[in-house]
Amino acid sequence: MTDRNLSKLPPVTAVLDSLARHGVKYECYDSVRVEPTDYSFKAAIDFVKKRNFDAYVAVGGGSVIDTCKAANLYACHPEADFLDFVNAPVGKGKPINRSLKPLIAVPTTAGTGSETTGVAIFDFEDLKAKTGIASRSLRPTLAMVDPLHTLHMPARVAANSGFDVLCHALESYTALPYNMRSPCPTNPITRPAYQGSNPISDVWARHALCIVAKYLKRAVHNPDDVEARSSMHLASVFAGIGFGNAGVHLCHGMSYPISGNIKTHKAKGYRVDHPLVPHGLSVVLTSPAVFAFTACMCPERHLEAAEILGADVRNVKTEDAGCVLADILRNFLYDLEVEDGLSEIGYSKEDIPELVKGTIPQERVTKLSPRSHTEEDLTRLFEASMTLY
Amino acid sequence: MTDRNLSKLPPVTAVLDSLARHGVKYECYDSVRVEPTDYSFKAAIDFVKKRNFDAYVAVGGGSVIDTCKAANLYACHPEADFLDFVNAPVGKGKPINRSLKPLIAVPTTAGTGSETTGVAIFDFEDLKAKTGIASRSLRPTLAMVDPLHTLHMPARVAANSGFDVLCHALESYTALPYNMRSPCPTNPITRPAYQGSNPISDVWARHALCIVAKYLKRAVHNPDDVEARSSMHLASVFAGIGFGNAGVHLCHGMSYPISGNIKTHKAKGYRVDHPLVPHGLSVVLTSPAVFAFTACMCPERHLEAAEILGADVRNVKTEDAGCVLADILRNFLYDLEVEDGLSEIGYSKEDIPELVKGTIPQERVTKLSPRSHTEEDLTRLFEASMTLY
Repeated sequence: MTDRNLSKLPPVTAVLDSLARHGVKYECYDSVRVEPTDYSFKAAIDFVKKRNFDAYVAVGGGSVIDTCKAANLYACHPEADFLDFVNAPVGKGKPINRSLKPLIAVPTTAGTGSETTGVAIFDFEDLKAKTGIASRSLRPTLAMVDPLHTLHMPARVAANSGFDVLCHALESYTALPYNMRSPCPTNPITRPAYQGSNPISDVWARHALCIVAKYLKRAVHNPDDVEARSSMHLASVFAGIGFGNAGVHLCHGMSYPISGNIKTHKAKGYRVDHPLVPHGLSVVLTSPAVFAFTACMCPERHLEAAEILGADVRNVKTEDAGCVLADILRNFLYDLEVEDGLSEIGYSKEDIPELVKGTIPQERVTKLSPRSHTEEDLTRLFEASMTLY
Repeated sequence: MTDRNLSKLPPVTAVLDSLARHGVKYECYDSVRVEPTDYSFKAAIDFVKKRNFDAYVAVGGGSVIDTCKAANLYACHPEADFLDFVNAPVGKGKPINRSLKPLIAVPTTAGTGSETTGVAIFDFEDLKAKTGIASRSLRPTLAMVDPLHTLHMPARVAANSGFDVLCHALESYTALPYNMRSPCPTNPITRPAYQGSNPISDVWARHALCIVAKYLKRAVHNPDDVEARSSMHLASVFAGIGFGNAGVHLCHGMSYPISGNIKTHKAKGYRVDHPLVPHGLSVVLTSPAVFAFTACMCPERHLEAAEILGADVRNVKTEDAGCVLADILRNFLYDLEVEDGLSEIGYSKEDIPELVKGTIPQERVTKLSPRSHTEEDLTRLFEASMTLY
């Protein structure tokens, strides 16, 4: 499974050659939509349901890997309705008890971390917001993390997928601690996929953030910098292992309506025929506002993140942690030529109620925010994200 | 499964109460030997072979968890000879293709990391050296890492198990890099359990080392310091995840004959009725000599480790990395009242040929040393470890 842009590129041809050389019969599905929807998920599901595959290989970014996870899931549950496994409250959020077929993920971007997680995200078109399916049984059996695959990423794809890593790391590091979630599930089996920040995810989040600080600019500005691209590829895996159990919170929760309501924005550097705000961009645009808002709940962690990203925090007061992190994030985004806020990708103040409405059902992630929030808070966060610089 | 000292303590009674409360039928085997042998492994295997257990719970340190892994393995392979799965060249090193029964590990020391690994180690009495069984199928299904269980550790057990963590971290961080092992296996399935240092194990090794540097002394000197004992408990898990795929090298390889040939040494603070050098102690006593020897192959990593342990490395020349790490290790061990070298646990120069002979078959680990070595090198390393201060 792959997408059309990748289907002629070396990562895919290497896989097909290898399958042919080893006498493995295969069919190639290359119609994955970049930023998939329920319709594109269903098209892939229909394709695989008509065959009887023993195993799957997903070669691509998060769109491809997530689509392949969903196809594998529903092919193994042919009787299930599509909404059965979709996260509540959008879907029924039923637990997945059956084992799926083996899935080998070959990530070609350095962002998603999907190769490490049990999550598959898509745009639910009726809702105009992203939602997903989350279960550890979706997690790929094996990932082939080869930095040479990422050398084909255009600069903007490297930047945007890098922002996804940045936010995975920052959000999971500042997520509500695992021992402060409530109510406790009555049985460990009903624990959510996202359990809050914890000593294991902290290690990955902090380490991934260090790599982003050191290598993201180099990886974007020089596609041939194998050390930088290789490091970012590992950072995306590391951040994935971290957020895959800790979770993400407001940047991701708010990003889903940002991408779902996009009308005309054509993403720079992406070869697609539909309006698109790349996932990493939709996530990072609210990050200065979000971390200024959450800092009061765990200022040390926000300051530590700011320091890793290059801020001088020696004489900073605890109550200024949020501003300091927001400032260094704005500088970082400016250097990487990120659009100047939501206004530059086509949103205006009039869209905010719709964006807030689309964030409400994202409680799977928003409830992991260290700071609880009202609709008014969300409104202010979207307002503050209209322009960045 | 547990040992006799633990069988009356809260970690075991909590498990038994829980099993009884939930109507789970069980039998308790509390005859695990501290520092197990092939004989004590076989006694446990015989016990479980006569029953038909659905699952295992191991409550204890590495001795208990390793014994339980072996019992589970041979109960699932009743036709196998004991040596079939023991590491070559001592045993036949056959691959394990059958799934074992679920095993829940509840570690009560902060050292082994056995709850995270696919390794079970024992003294092979005829050989007077430790060897083991290594396969990812041995890895416990689940670990319950609860720091409250470690509050029952006597101070010397906390120190010695902490030294095991220290050496797991140092050895896996300095192990031969995964891409320098040769020859490559022809097929990934025949990769050894220990694959050399790699970007994943490096994260765990470095992080575990930071925790040891910060908390080991506190954890030893004040058994009620829950923060320190809790941190060391996590460090043992983290180091275990790291060395469990990267491997260890000379300190561990040389420790196996050190513990196997012990004649009269009674370990301080251990309630056992046989001569014993605790595993962590047998490992750490050679560490100054070993890292002085290996430093020339990756001096930056040795210097980084020395810095984490508190050395001032600002003006240190690369060629002095080994001495600097060895010195800070000696200081660290002195502060923790460690015996003054192999001579203080009953060895003399005359024993060295026997110790070298016992190290030779440990190639499963010694081949991961970043620096290749002859029997003369091993002789010199044992000589240099006779006294430390």
